[in-house]
Amino acid sequence: MSELDNTPEYLFGAGLTFRPEIKILDCTIRDGGLMSNHHFEDKAVRAVYFACVKAGLDYMELGYKASKKLFTPSLYGAWKYCDEENIKRIVGENHTGLKLSAMADATRTDYKTDILPKQQSVLDMIRVACYTHQLSTALDMVKDARDKGYETTINIIAISTVTEAELDKSLELAAESGVDTIYLVDSFGNLYNKQIQYLIKKYIKYDRQVGIHAHNNRELAFANTIEACEHGANMLDGSLAGLGRGAGNCRTELIVGFLRHSKYRLRPLLECIQEHIEPLRKHLLWGPDIPYMLTGLYNQHPRSAIQYNAGENRGNYIKFFDDIKGKN
Amino acid sequence: MSELDNTPEYLFGAGLTFRPEIKILDCTIRDGGLMSNHHFEDKAVRAVYFACVKAGLDYMELGYKASKKLFTPSLYGAWKYCDEENIKRIVGENHTGLKLSAMADATRTDYKTDILPKQQSVLDMIRVACYTHQLSTALDMVKDARDKGYETTINIIAISTVTEAELDKSLELAAESGVDTIYLVDSFGNLYNKQIQYLIKKYIKYDRQVGIHAHNNRELAFANTIEACEHGANMLDGSLAGLGRGAGNCRTELIVGFLRHSKYRLRPLLECIQEHIEPLRKHLLWGPDIPYMLTGLYNQHPRSAIQYNAGENRGNYIKFFDDIKGKN
Repeated sequence: MSELDNTPEYLFGAGLTFRPEIKILDCTIRDGGLMSNHHFEDKAVRAVYFACVKAGLDYMELGYKASKKLFTPSLYGAWKYCDEENIKRIVGENHTGLKLSAMADATRTDYKTDILPKQQSVLDMIRVACYTHQLSTALDMVKDARDKGYETTINIIAISTVTEAELDKSLELAAESGVDTIYLVDSFGNLYNKQIQYLIKKYIKYDRQVGIHAHNNRELAFANTIEACEHGANMLDGSLAGLGRGAGNCRTELIVGFLRHSKYRLRPLLECIQEHIEPLRKHLLWGPDIPYMLTGLYNQHPRSAIQYNAGENRGNYIKFFDDIKGKN
Repeated sequence: MSELDNTPEYLFGAGLTFRPEIKILDCTIRDGGLMSNHHFEDKAVRAVYFACVKAGLDYMELGYKASKKLFTPSLYGAWKYCDEENIKRIVGENHTGLKLSAMADATRTDYKTDILPKQQSVLDMIRVACYTHQLSTALDMVKDARDKGYETTINIIAISTVTEAELDKSLELAAESGVDTIYLVDSFGNLYNKQIQYLIKKYIKYDRQVGIHAHNNRELAFANTIEACEHGANMLDGSLAGLGRGAGNCRTELIVGFLRHSKYRLRPLLECIQEHIEPLRKHLLWGPDIPYMLTGLYNQHPRSAIQYNAGENRGNYIKFFDDIKGKN
């Protein structure tokens, strides 16, 4: 951090500062899958993959490793499960500089059987997502993935609803597990810059790499990602055009623009957005709007807003406001 | 600032902190007029006015005081000029707590004749917008408006293109003028949080009230408004649904959500957005998108992106990127 601390603060983000430890992870297909029930045409997944490769990104997340016992395959697309043959159909043996990851939700995965030993997989990293109360399961999953040879992360979700004591204990246990990266996840898009700053300063004390995954309910996903980066987060999550659950994610293209490093290129991302992501808006409704702003403001899961936006009352902000206020 | 400085930083914005000096100015009709050629139906202007009143906002900006010699009235809507009779048709004598303002651009206004003495006007405040090289004209305009009895602001625009020496001298001269408020205006939507912080710390040294007017090219308008507020800016500009030039402004409803003060109410704003602002999207194209992100990134006026988005190549991000890169 000494290099960063000595930089005149107004130059940060002007393209004159960069830590080599910074990495970008694009989660377009994984988080976007929450809006498409994990259905994407192969050509779209392939386009995102090649865009990430050409843009020089560090990681791409393809989807989930969900249990087929809990989630019947006929009801979901391929990227709910990330079977090895489906991944390889897109990326072959992935002889590129782009690392690949999949997410496994604590309690929703048959990780012992479904996550293959690293030598049998083109995946490089397993990201374990959990609520704090699921941490013991998550730690078992991290151990399993580490033993199988993967890089690992723990993504403690819905952090805006967690007490400080819970968080401190969770971070302590996560750090002890030997996991490579601990993620700050603002699932509800509730946090402000100052809160991100406060939390990141806490996370980095545990001597693990720190990541940031921000949602855009209040149009703060990019700002919070920058804020986290400035205070030491090195794994930055984004998605193309912000495609992701509800209000969506921080836009990967904004991160690349912010870092302005010769390692990254913007053009392949814009090309993919133009050809493959924006056309999805015909069927998928993501991005900031009033109902998502309200779930963010009232620190709630976005599911009520997603249901609302999919229904006949879409656009009736007052009805949604009165409903949510009635419950607050 | 002592109250603010003693607040645990993670509580700022949690609704537990508020400075009574903070004021919200809604510029929906003024900045939005740049997208509609200053045409709005009376019912829309009236709806915004009553929404601002009911929401407890502090100021509403109605439009410009543009020269009719320079800008032929047949080519523009009424809110390019803000003639007194047009304002009064909407607000009557404005017996409310909401103050009204109009903007006058340096060199584009016949301010000596067109800005009436305060006793003859329902306007409360004149905001003078200028580039640094127009400052001497702006200072004459501030003197004129002060002599006529108005509150005044100087909005030094396109600040991301100004050298530090120019800015320092401009702030010194502006402060000497006795103007009530000096605005930090990120016209191009170029600045990051750290730059806003650095600049606001500079602005507040001049012992005038400081305001912030941010554009949303990189989805940072709200974050930058918060950042400015945290470091002492007390006049916060917003517009409903972000309606404003190009990528638009900070959303007023996000500011109200952030401050969470009993003085302000969210519902009337949401009602107005639903009934009167969102329907304008049929004809007006505003809000963040890739071309505006690129003009913000390359620190340019948004006019090239506005023209682009209005033309047949709209959505061809790669063409716009190659064009703008060719010029950088």
